[in-house]
Amino acid sequence: MSQARLMDGTALARRIVDEAAKKAADLTERTGTAPCLATVLVGEDPASVTYVRMKQNRCRKAGITSRHVPLPADTTTEQLVGTLRDLSADPAVHGILLQHPMGPHIDERAAFEAIAPEKDVDGVTFASFATMSFGLPGFVSCTPGGIMRLLDEYGVDPAGRRAVVVGRSAILGKPAGMLLLARDATVTYCHSRTADLSAAVREADIVVAAVGRPRLIRGQDIKPGAVVIDAGYNAGNVGDVDFDSAVERASLITPVPGGVGPMTIATLLEQTVDAAARQLGV
Amino acid sequence: MSQARLMDGTALARRIVDEAAKKAADLTERTGTAPCLATVLVGEDPASVTYVRMKQNRCRKAGITSRHVPLPADTTTEQLVGTLRDLSADPAVHGILLQHPMGPHIDERAAFEAIAPEKDVDGVTFASFATMSFGLPGFVSCTPGGIMRLLDEYGVDPAGRRAVVVGRSAILGKPAGMLLLARDATVTYCHSRTADLSAAVREADIVVAAVGRPRLIRGQDIKPGAVVIDAGYNAGNVGDVDFDSAVERASLITPVPGGVGPMTIATLLEQTVDAAARQLGV
Repeated sequence: MSQARLMDGTALARRIVDEAAKKAADLTERTGTAPCLATVLVGEDPASVTYVRMKQNRCRKAGITSRHVPLPADTTTEQLVGTLRDLSADPAVHGILLQHPMGPHIDERAAFEAIAPEKDVDGVTFASFATMSFGLPGFVSCTPGGIMRLLDEYGVDPAGRRAVVVGRSAILGKPAGMLLLARDATVTYCHSRTADLSAAVREADIVVAAVGRPRLIRGQDIKPGAVVIDAGYNAGNVGDVDFDSAVERASLITPVPGGVGPMTIATLLEQTVDAAARQLGV
Repeated sequence: MSQARLMDGTALARRIVDEAAKKAADLTERTGTAPCLATVLVGEDPASVTYVRMKQNRCRKAGITSRHVPLPADTTTEQLVGTLRDLSADPAVHGILLQHPMGPHIDERAAFEAIAPEKDVDGVTFASFATMSFGLPGFVSCTPGGIMRLLDEYGVDPAGRRAVVVGRSAILGKPAGMLLLARDATVTYCHSRTADLSAAVREADIVVAAVGRPRLIRGQDIKPGAVVIDAGYNAGNVGDVDFDSAVERASLITPVPGGVGPMTIATLLEQTVDAAARQLGV
């Protein structure tokens, strides 16, 4: 049996970032202002610190200024909302990234909603979710947005095809399904309460695994020729799909790592530059 | 073969409206203020005029004041947005209903977004769509909300069951699917681009038809014992489901009329009273 072609997220992400860097340079030259992403971090969770630092580094390489706003771990929701409102109103800031998850004492939703939709380059607000869902202009959640770009890059038109999204988180599964629906796929949402996951996956022309359970999706359930997008990331670089068996049946599959992962930050950078261009009137 | 039991929306809606009327009377007695729904109508489309008048009559009977705001047909989006913002800020108004569809010169989305979420008793804003989608407190779109009430009334727990929603409009299909997903159904969205609608419907334990095409869903595609919710309304009181054949296979089915239809306005009235109670601090 022939093996699936790999969807190279690393290469596509690099092209997107290069393109964003060009736009950022052009914008800086024309307006005297570089695109600026505010990164807001509550507390000092080591993983979160690392993620934010990585995003800042990637911004710098792309010619995007980042303004880091570290807040103490005991920051209240009210204080955080105040900070995010200030950043939303600050004309020198074009995009806002609130690193999450945050501590349980923070009302995460209240915090997200304090981000102005036109600066929501991470796609976490109600408004962004709704514009994604209704196929309207707006920023997308970065990972689902990156998934759609991968499909486009590899010539996969979702229209009329059955897509099965496994997972229903607010920033991954739910918006991924809505973006596929807006592109005319017949979309099924599966999750922990789905009675027969295998049966649902077997129907799929496009599988999006976005649930965070190592190797939950097995090759025997992949319809021959299906497109398999693995957005899971688990310890030891293991995805939500059992790659070794799925690669034997899929036509296209994302590796882990190097598939969906790199697309997330590329989408963030691209949307930050787009936000800056819009706000600077270019 | 045994026939499906009918889901009596007329009776359930009457109970919901009676309950809302009791709450409205109680609220009026305790605060001296009756719940107030503002109804905004652009132009004089005869069907829209009739709908608004019907809603006003139903409000009156339930002890809800309605404040009618008729606007000329050539009202601009900007003017409409201004009116809706004023109503959103007016403490004497507890709920806002913007009759739609409106003329093509109106940016409907801009108008909806001018409605404060806490007065969005028709469930049309981005915020309401997102709270429905994320299972958070908020107002629901009235028809999908009514569908969920019908399911509850007849003891249908969507958890773990396969639900197929046919149609993906912003105020019916999309939110209906999201509400079912929030209740742990495995949800599939079908629509005009779905390649094999029959195959998808045949999988469904719960079918929600919400597309506005007369008798699109035929009995032969209903899984024996499925629950069939027909939210279609077409000329001649014909639903989206071929009732005569579907009733032979379903376990529960909504008639047209008298199924989903009456639930929509009942939900509107209930949410208006709830909005008033919250705003009046009761």
